[in-house]
Amino acid sequence: MKQEEIEELIKSYGYRVDKELEKIIEKEVKSDFSKWLNEPIWYHMGTGGKRLRPALCLLSCELLGGDVEKALNFALACEIMHNYLLLHDDVMDGDTVRRDFPTVWVKYGVPNAINAGDYMIAKAYETILKSDLPLEKIKKLIQIFTETLIKTGEGQALDVNYRAYENLTVEKYLELAELKTGYYLICPVVGGSIVAGVPESVIKELWKLGGNLGTSFQIRDDIIDLTEGKGRGGKIGCDIKEGKPSILFAHALSKANSEEKKKLIKIMKKPRDETTKEDIEWVINLYKKYGTIEFAQQKAEELAEEALEIIDKIDFEKKDLIKKITEFIVSRKK
Amino acid sequence: MKQEEIEELIKSYGYRVDKELEKIIEKEVKSDFSKWLNEPIWYHMGTGGKRLRPALCLLSCELLGGDVEKALNFALACEIMHNYLLLHDDVMDGDTVRRDFPTVWVKYGVPNAINAGDYMIAKAYETILKSDLPLEKIKKLIQIFTETLIKTGEGQALDVNYRAYENLTVEKYLELAELKTGYYLICPVVGGSIVAGVPESVIKELWKLGGNLGTSFQIRDDIIDLTEGKGRGGKIGCDIKEGKPSILFAHALSKANSEEKKKLIKIMKKPRDETTKEDIEWVINLYKKYGTIEFAQQKAEELAEEALEIIDKIDFEKKDLIKKITEFIVSRKK
Repeated sequence: MKQEEIEELIKSYGYRVDKELEKIIEKEVKSDFSKWLNEPIWYHMGTGGKRLRPALCLLSCELLGGDVEKALNFALACEIMHNYLLLHDDVMDGDTVRRDFPTVWVKYGVPNAINAGDYMIAKAYETILKSDLPLEKIKKLIQIFTETLIKTGEGQALDVNYRAYENLTVEKYLELAELKTGYYLICPVVGGSIVAGVPESVIKELWKLGGNLGTSFQIRDDIIDLTEGKGRGGKIGCDIKEGKPSILFAHALSKANSEEKKKLIKIMKKPRDETTKEDIEWVINLYKKYGTIEFAQQKAEELAEEALEIIDKIDFEKKDLIKKITEFIVSRKK
Repeated sequence: MKQEEIEELIKSYGYRVDKELEKIIEKEVKSDFSKWLNEPIWYHMGTGGKRLRPALCLLSCELLGGDVEKALNFALACEIMHNYLLLHDDVMDGDTVRRDFPTVWVKYGVPNAINAGDYMIAKAYETILKSDLPLEKIKKLIQIFTETLIKTGEGQALDVNYRAYENLTVEKYLELAELKTGYYLICPVVGGSIVAGVPESVIKELWKLGGNLGTSFQIRDDIIDLTEGKGRGGKIGCDIKEGKPSILFAHALSKANSEEKKKLIKIMKKPRDETTKEDIEWVINLYKKYGTIEFAQQKAEELAEEALEIIDKIDFEKKDLIKKITEFIVSRKK
């Protein structure tokens, strides 16, 4: 399958996913409670998002010879999980803008944002349970979905508590990124592969790709925050304002002299509203001084290459197809 | 089995549950992330709680002729779910004290409280998945667990948004209470029954008990708030401070004259810290004037009696044992 054909497929998957999501969580407000559940959930899911994860699930299933229809429910569950994680993330980070709109907690209040997220994850499980698949596969899908949530939660614990953390190292950052974003990026691929009947031994190897691809993905996201901004009204340097444990912050900490380190941490610790334009410029200049952005770019590429090496070592006749999936992931923005 | 024997069983179940919970979420802090997950979770779960739900699950399985060992994982998952719901509830309600200790969000911050709850629910699913049971039963258990979370979330949406709600009626209250507390009270009984191999048709009837018993339970909880307080430093009238949609508030709204109604809603709407002792006394006197507490007590009893009637109609040889479980629930405080 050529790259253009894959792109066409992805588009059609995206359309399909949106239509099916409306069957799981109806857009129309039909009862009192749906005003505070379905409405905020669609407010959140409707603000865009690239439906990357369900597409990855369906693409993996298709390329590996499975029946795409049977992977659909898991693909939907992955999209719901993704949105649930972002929704709760925004509350935890106090982020007020997501995809250029006010976040759910800003519009509906913190209690409704927490509850809507909790509801979404239950709906995601319900969706997997309704898959037209043998019991054994359903169990496996629920297992990997659950493991993904556990790992992502562990990563989130580090992310939340490493704000402006002066002992952050590149190594600690890599652990955090693998836990927080690796599993839930690769989970749809693993799910699609399970539906397609890929052997257990290959599934184990696929999980490893998450560490590399997810981290590579996350690093590129860290860089985007300094170049184009992350869909938060075009603002640049949000991660600096929030004191986020990015690879850039970790690398700069390892290079800066003691005076610079002090100032860097001081800026990272400032409450978001008190961080000035000058502060952000100062940090970016520090990053430039120590080649931090190049370091990050190189690391992202290295990790993507390592992923291809992992695939080369897999004993599986269809590994070229897994490579195609990997290339697709690497070509996307987060 | 006599009542005293049941009490003995429950005690031994409680001890067992605590020991097993430590295997799922270790008490010892072994990694960076467990400082912000395991520690707050045990801080919360360790402050007591009566382990009523796992006991109900094990008791139901035992009485209905199942192998208690095989129901253990589901029982543990129910206890984790219960604690997860309370933990997130405290954030949503802004409650600062639970079981006479500062709540998790007060001690560890809102982000860690949200994340710890999210983590707990994933760990609960993981626990069910590890049950030593045939695939079909595992799927059924995950189904009822998921349905419970969905219904509880719908009830929570009403609870959160019916604060100081002037159009609250007793009917709306009953819908809310069934959704919010009915399912997750009966879920352990249903789970224990599934493990014991109780037929599907009986399982359907058991669910109905939740509506009655859970609501009866919740009403008694509403009353306790006015008599002994709910483990929040012995404070009385917390529900009034929070403007909670209790049966008492709903009933008084239906009886009060327009002047009283106005004042009642005004007090319910006041921010928690601005509600005075006099306000609470005034509301309690209004409740007394209209026989609200007696109405609530009577409703709680009616619902418990209806539960027994539902059981009487079930076509099942062991229905007397289900009655025993029901009596056990009714004899407990929330």
